[in-house]
Amino acid sequence: MRRALDEARQAAAEGEVPVGAIVVCGDRVIARAHNQTERLNDPTAHAEMLAITAATGAMGAKYLPECRLYVTVEPCVMCAGAIGWAQLGAVVYGAPDAKRGFTVYAPQAFHPRTEVRGGVMEAECAAEMTAFFRAKR
Amino acid sequence: MRRALDEARQAAAEGEVPVGAIVVCGDRVIARAHNQTERLNDPTAHAEMLAITAATGAMGAKYLPECRLYVTVEPCVMCAGAIGWAQLGAVVYGAPDAKRGFTVYAPQAFHPRTEVRGGVMEAECAAEMTAFFRAKR
Repeated sequence: MRRALDEARQAAAEGEVPVGAIVVCGDRVIARAHNQTERLNDPTAHAEMLAITAATGAMGAKYLPECRLYVTVEPCVMCAGAIGWAQLGAVVYGAPDAKRGFTVYAPQAFHPRTEVRGGVMEAECAAEMTAFFRAKR
Repeated sequence: MRRALDEARQAAAEGEVPVGAIVVCGDRVIARAHNQTERLNDPTAHAEMLAITAATGAMGAKYLPECRLYVTVEPCVMCAGAIGWAQLGAVVYGAPDAKRGFTVYAPQAFHPRTEVRGGVMEAECAAEMTAFFRAKR
């Protein structure tokens, strides 16, 4: 999650909502990404989406049951759907997102075998978001 | 929807699950796409995702409240989430998808102002899917 947080901070430095994600397979980080919706002018360019696209490219496979996704904020509906299609083995997220998070809006989006854990380094992940939006106001 | 069906048939010709999408703004088609998950080896490369990315690029805007998305099959959770982020003015789809469709798994994914209409040219859209999967077996 520390690596994902580094990505989130990179996003903030670029004026993007600070969400970072990495995909790990065994002990290897096979993809890392941060939110780029502003830079790419694309509302689909969330950290998780970019990381999944990169990871499937790196693995040469559409499904990633051996991989774990770490993301600093609870995935939204779109990203949860993508995680479902990619059949990730595990999803670990930091801060919850009561307004957009999948647990409220699409609780069944993941593959049934995907393990889910939230609240990992929650305070640090949430602090990035809070600082970003406070500075925007 | 006829244009979206053309895209779906193009997908089938390429060995892809036959889903096509277009984005219309006023009288102009500003984006067209078909499913490319196999070609791009990317489970996120659904017709709707590619069409939304193309449409936001064409419009130079992250939000598309003046635009309508036509897609041959009911959007999945991922695509519904993307439609929500892009705040499309309307979504028109053809065949329902009881197994993966957003109406079951993420019924609140769209922006509240997005108009939704399903079942448009449903028989033709469904026939593409049926023919594709029959040929696969």
